[in-house]
Amino acid sequence: MQLDDQDIAALDKRYRAALINAVTGYKPANLVATADAQGHSNVAIMSSVVHLGSRPPLIGLVIRPDPVDRHTLDNILETGYYTINHVGEHFIESAHQTAARYPREISEFEATGLTEHWHEDFHAPFVGEATVRMGLRLREHQKLAINGTHLVIGEVVLLDLPDDCVDAEGRLDLTRAGTVALSGLDTYHAGTPLKVMAYASPDSAPRDLGPSAT
Amino acid sequence: MQLDDQDIAALDKRYRAALINAVTGYKPANLVATADAQGHSNVAIMSSVVHLGSRPPLIGLVIRPDPVDRHTLDNILETGYYTINHVGEHFIESAHQTAARYPREISEFEATGLTEHWHEDFHAPFVGEATVRMGLRLREHQKLAINGTHLVIGEVVLLDLPDDCVDAEGRLDLTRAGTVALSGLDTYHAGTPLKVMAYASPDSAPRDLGPSAT
Repeated sequence: MQLDDQDIAALDKRYRAALINAVTGYKPANLVATADAQGHSNVAIMSSVVHLGSRPPLIGLVIRPDPVDRHTLDNILETGYYTINHVGEHFIESAHQTAARYPREISEFEATGLTEHWHEDFHAPFVGEATVRMGLRLREHQKLAINGTHLVIGEVVLLDLPDDCVDAEGRLDLTRAGTVALSGLDTYHAGTPLKVMAYASPDSAPRDLGPSAT
Repeated sequence: MQLDDQDIAALDKRYRAALINAVTGYKPANLVATADAQGHSNVAIMSSVVHLGSRPPLIGLVIRPDPVDRHTLDNILETGYYTINHVGEHFIESAHQTAARYPREISEFEATGLTEHWHEDFHAPFVGEATVRMGLRLREHQKLAINGTHLVIGEVVLLDLPDDCVDAEGRLDLTRAGTVALSGLDTYHAGTPLKVMAYASPDSAPRDLGPSAT
């Protein structure tokens, strides 16, 4: 099918939301966890995490101008800290359930059965069920004028990874970690490695190092 | 393993780049195609596409402050148009090869064997091999002060999708489309649907609609 801007604008609202949320391709499925200054926790599934740089390690997070996602944003702005935790195959249901519109006084940890995992001296909880976890310090925040979404930029100040999922060259094995990908609003996928490609150079043909380089 | 900010800063540069590029989880693998005002084409693989909103349909794209990625950015700023094309399983090699540092006068289409596909009245080429393709109009551009990366925001004004990959509710079947995901800098994955989750509500338990909802 081929749709132009007017066709897209004329789509049913839910159909459009499902479709436009899917057209970017596979998305990372992460749980963003926070606490307010009093330590009340919050956790929300988000698929809008994007790599911004490695030195320093910076990650962007797009937060919708929505009352529910606002709890997460308010906590990040209040404490300056948050965590990003990979959604794993064995807790897709509880991770997805964090998207429900719980009132502010209810912690999604308690409501969904996910486990708060606190690191000493870190001002936000991690998700106990997650195998790949990051702690971030807020570096920058802006509201995008174009549609009122918020761009939150954080620096990775804590990384917690399974030893057997990182190879000698720094590759993280997402399949072994049990990490899932999200498509659209509701479809969760496992990944199967197909190819590891050698560093691309204008002087050599593309070279496949195999489905896993190690 | 557990790393704090000082441990991360002390990592070998390439190891850190591989690791930090992977910690966000699965990333979309897309080819961003452009042309300059004279019609000279350019295509580059990018994994930093992020959904910003559905109404209007807005997509963010992070472009590194790198001389090679700069060709893409310059063309977008010059013409106001670009395309995003899903990398498919059957052309991973040529898609990856677009990351090589070709000089500006060489089109990566020609160098890698990818096919330029022009739509009437659209000012950027699409990738002929891709099954899922979008045409975007530039809406906003900013350089992020924090690390010099560029955030490009575009509106989807053209969508070209295989009919049999979209269900009645707007879900796009990425597995059927042959779309791949990227992990880190070099590892390409196929996706296998695990669960389609019902809309989350505080009043009901999470419900799995099956590996595919249709």
